[in-house]
Amino acid sequence: MSASDPQQAPLGVFDSGVGGLTVVRALRELLPNESIVYLGDTARVPYGSKSPDTIRRFSVEDSQFLVSHGVKAVVVACNTATAHALPVLQATFRVPVIGVIEPGVEATLADGKCERVGIIGTAGTIRSSAYQYALAMRRPGLQIHATATPLLVPFVEEGWVEHPALKLVLKQYLDPLLEKGIDTLMLGCTHYPLLMPVLQKMLGKKVHLIDSASTCAAHTKRVLEEQKLLRKGRGKPTLDIYLTDLSEQAEAMARRFLGTEFGKVKKATL
Amino acid sequence: MSASDPQQAPLGVFDSGVGGLTVVRALRELLPNESIVYLGDTARVPYGSKSPDTIRRFSVEDSQFLVSHGVKAVVVACNTATAHALPVLQATFRVPVIGVIEPGVEATLADGKCERVGIIGTAGTIRSSAYQYALAMRRPGLQIHATATPLLVPFVEEGWVEHPALKLVLKQYLDPLLEKGIDTLMLGCTHYPLLMPVLQKMLGKKVHLIDSASTCAAHTKRVLEEQKLLRKGRGKPTLDIYLTDLSEQAEAMARRFLGTEFGKVKKATL
Repeated sequence: MSASDPQQAPLGVFDSGVGGLTVVRALRELLPNESIVYLGDTARVPYGSKSPDTIRRFSVEDSQFLVSHGVKAVVVACNTATAHALPVLQATFRVPVIGVIEPGVEATLADGKCERVGIIGTAGTIRSSAYQYALAMRRPGLQIHATATPLLVPFVEEGWVEHPALKLVLKQYLDPLLEKGIDTLMLGCTHYPLLMPVLQKMLGKKVHLIDSASTCAAHTKRVLEEQKLLRKGRGKPTLDIYLTDLSEQAEAMARRFLGTEFGKVKKATL
Repeated sequence: MSASDPQQAPLGVFDSGVGGLTVVRALRELLPNESIVYLGDTARVPYGSKSPDTIRRFSVEDSQFLVSHGVKAVVVACNTATAHALPVLQATFRVPVIGVIEPGVEATLADGKCERVGIIGTAGTIRSSAYQYALAMRRPGLQIHATATPLLVPFVEEGWVEHPALKLVLKQYLDPLLEKGIDTLMLGCTHYPLLMPVLQKMLGKKVHLIDSASTCAAHTKRVLEEQKLLRKGRGKPTLDIYLTDLSEQAEAMARRFLGTEFGKVKKATL
């Protein structure tokens, strides 16, 4: 690509680890012609339990890495990073920076009948009140019930997404939300799309599930269209995956989140 | 303290997070006259899921921080860091560097009758084979069964140490070890002492539990005695806690691991 041809530049996507590959998966389904550079900060994962200052510092470093690789936009495929760092990233970088929270909020409110919304996510995401704030600003009077669910990521990473212990954990976390009569549950973490089957079984059709990966991909498509940044159909699009820590474990998990094989993962030093 | 009076210098202790405070707790019980400088690398916690190279780099940085604070010895209160980085730390620094694995192995083998040993720990610790190697070198023919138990740390950190879901998780992890007829179970992670009550209830008296915190403290005492580094009874000993990321959550957990209140936590930048 050349500086005069930003459409041909890749999309940049970063996450604290490999969970953000659920967003890459959704992006590739919706925008199959786009090249993508992905950065997973596996050396410092997770962000969800860390302080706002630290999350902001890490997120700026992650975005700098992507921008130095010539991306035309940065997708923050991490709810915790979006919650704490999106404004500073948008103020710092010239390319569009797209978060993962606003699209989920839009998708939730698109259903005019939703009245009681539950939100689950990491401790950092829930404590930031970013979801709660975005919902309340758009629709005052909406009932919002948020709860931190820190054990869900470890279960997904262990691959125990159908285990009886996971069901007990989900029950403990979700019962208080169900008692409040939620009609919508926002999955505020990029790991959670892998829990869709068990959640659908537990909650039936009475609760509408909103996942941040597919809603973020749809939003990214709109931004690229508006800014005339969609890639033209010349040459095969590429996918480059960089991780700050390489391990077999991370690569195996990456495969699970992306849902497909990929080329050699590269080591990034921030 | 002065350079000519190393006995009065504090002990340095580091861990990937606050779990290593279980070692500090054991050290304070056994060596109540020692001052301690603790470093928890909460900005990059956990180490257990990361690669050997990254763990070694982080461990050297942690030790450098402690040495620059004038410690007379470094205790590596993290099984994963001990497993991957102890030799490089001992080769790099002039002060004694004490790991958490060797003492547990010594304590296990002190029971001449043990024949079948189970080991649980993080993925990084188990994959390193450090426990398995140390046991096999000392007692060839010993039956060793090691298994990674990555969900236990998140349960301890969530504070769900009596939850039915935890019991299902423990059952899943431990049943294969029990089927092998283990007579000893080594708890190869500094978080696990908080699981002692539930483990004792599950395993009864037929399995001997070895925890790394108290065995490491006993070993540290021996090293200080041998090297004539025990602090003389002048002035009240101090405890300084540094964390690379400060959060209420980390401080609340720190209190739980240490089992007592402490002064203001300081922010460390590595």
